[in-house]
Amino acid sequence: MQAVAIRRGSSSPAVIETPRPEPDAGEVLVRTLRVGVDGTDHEVIAGGHGGFPEDDDHLVLGHEAVGVVEDPNGTSFSEGDVVVPTVRRPPNGDAKGYFERGEPDMAPPNLVHERGITGAHGFMAEYFTSPAEFLVKIPPELADLGFLVEPISISEKAFEHAFAARSAFDWDPETALVLGNGSLGLLTLAMCANFERTFCLGRRDRPDPTIDVIEELGATYVDSRETPVDEIPDVHEPMDFVYEATGYARHACQAIEALAPNGVAALLGVPEPWEFEIDGGTLHKDLVMNNKALVGSVNSNRRHFEAAVDTLSSLPEWLFDDLVTGIYSLSEFERAFQDDETTIKTAIQFDNR
Amino acid sequence: MQAVAIRRGSSSPAVIETPRPEPDAGEVLVRTLRVGVDGTDHEVIAGGHGGFPEDDDHLVLGHEAVGVVEDPNGTSFSEGDVVVPTVRRPPNGDAKGYFERGEPDMAPPNLVHERGITGAHGFMAEYFTSPAEFLVKIPPELADLGFLVEPISISEKAFEHAFAARSAFDWDPETALVLGNGSLGLLTLAMCANFERTFCLGRRDRPDPTIDVIEELGATYVDSRETPVDEIPDVHEPMDFVYEATGYARHACQAIEALAPNGVAALLGVPEPWEFEIDGGTLHKDLVMNNKALVGSVNSNRRHFEAAVDTLSSLPEWLFDDLVTGIYSLSEFERAFQDDETTIKTAIQFDNR
Repeated sequence: MQAVAIRRGSSSPAVIETPRPEPDAGEVLVRTLRVGVDGTDHEVIAGGHGGFPEDDDHLVLGHEAVGVVEDPNGTSFSEGDVVVPTVRRPPNGDAKGYFERGEPDMAPPNLVHERGITGAHGFMAEYFTSPAEFLVKIPPELADLGFLVEPISISEKAFEHAFAARSAFDWDPETALVLGNGSLGLLTLAMCANFERTFCLGRRDRPDPTIDVIEELGATYVDSRETPVDEIPDVHEPMDFVYEATGYARHACQAIEALAPNGVAALLGVPEPWEFEIDGGTLHKDLVMNNKALVGSVNSNRRHFEAAVDTLSSLPEWLFDDLVTGIYSLSEFERAFQDDETTIKTAIQFDNR
Repeated sequence: MQAVAIRRGSSSPAVIETPRPEPDAGEVLVRTLRVGVDGTDHEVIAGGHGGFPEDDDHLVLGHEAVGVVEDPNGTSFSEGDVVVPTVRRPPNGDAKGYFERGEPDMAPPNLVHERGITGAHGFMAEYFTSPAEFLVKIPPELADLGFLVEPISISEKAFEHAFAARSAFDWDPETALVLGNGSLGLLTLAMCANFERTFCLGRRDRPDPTIDVIEELGATYVDSRETPVDEIPDVHEPMDFVYEATGYARHACQAIEALAPNGVAALLGVPEPWEFEIDGGTLHKDLVMNNKALVGSVNSNRRHFEAAVDTLSSLPEWLFDDLVTGIYSLSEFERAFQDDETTIKTAIQFDNR
């Protein structure tokens, strides 16, 4: 079968021929429908994030997949079920407790593999196998958009943890700021419909398709070249909730200044080392005197995937028409990895049946 | 009556003569028993924190008080009740919602007064009045130690908020690190009895009374001159919970590195502005990839005072014998403000009856 992989030493993905996997006991064989491409894939390709499977010269990409059960192989699934796989897998017994509790997302990252990212092949292939416990069944009518379940689940977890951090008191957030107008930022902005006023930060000139989505969602576009994050309270208003999806390390510090008293910032970016100067005293005092919180969040678990399925079916159809700027067949897979100003979200289509 | 106050322009407190207050409707007249001295008092005296009441040339100090109801003045209290006052007061209607919800600790600091700290006179006087709603009744047998209810309540809140921030998953913390071996740090260390292994950071040579308390509590003393906070995971082990009570801004950043995956740091210090360099990229990535959290916490509300009363009665008596290094009458009040290496916690005694 064919798969999209990155080879050791290469800086661009390629289609490779690889054996169709055979499901072991307890595993399901899934025929892949679509696999999304996101910033993590670009980081994996660039070599800044993730790692190859041991003893392999390549990594099959892809962690945002949707597929159809081809062979349930004696599990509780049925042939034809539409499924989305979770991403983390236990390479050995080290993270056993986390997986048993259904919280592999909370395992220390060095104890787990992430399919398509680090240590284990991804889903960007005509078929993949997965233990049944790591597959989430979704309604068949969501099959076309099922590759968005994984990214939405990432934000479901971030919301859950951020709100938990504010659960010790009566918190009634009104304002939300999403840092980053990539596909994850825009999906997350769409998930902020319960906030009264929403804002999304980018660094693009109009006309721009992401600014169109931001404004169609009723949010205010903030151009970081005009309004740095720490000036947002003065120019707009302080934010009860900040969601950082830029991987720009200064944003983690500036988010503290963007927050309203009692606010919380969820951090999701994964920057490289970068030394810079901060007014640590003022930031520290601000966190304390205004009861602010910062919460880092990575990955997601089955519960978040299930919540993401509900979210996916509740979001308006126009959003996906605007957000999904390209679905490409394997023969034109390279277009799915292009990242220009007209691209928001792409996926590779493996099967049209 | 006599009171201990700091005058505008002065750098040391003095005993002043001031009219005995008359309780307004809904207010109680309290005869003061003891008032504790803490780091905030020293900051207020030094002018780095807090502020004088408008139109007054002095601020009566003291926010850690215990007293006896002298005149219930038609409230639900009875003469002779032993009471501890909370600290925040509404100067006007701006923070009304926070007070109505019983959460003045969550009000933006510029909307409230803090008695003895900013905008309103404290309790370091022979008598004080307070609205009945801001008085917490405590068992008479705790009268001698009642001045510790307020500082303990500060940590009750910090624990509550930190644990809330970890409530979205199955968190089973084993290790706790308290940054700071002042009286608040040591009280908090004593409150960490549920952790399996505890650590407390200071910068003192042995023999030292705070190190004795740390070790009597079964904790490990960490000398920051030998082991900086960010090296604690290597030298000792990573910490599930870090409590910062030093006001040293670098500790807020280093605490991230001291944390175990999924850990949380509660920040309570109030540093001055201070610019320094950090590896913001690595700290940001660490927060995200390891699901870490930072929670700032200030002040406390009635619920935390009530929890503190329970905590106070559960802590061992030897702790207070060691911790309270001096109780001074008004005639020797200056000794209560001395801060040398034999001093841990002091209080001023107003009434022996």
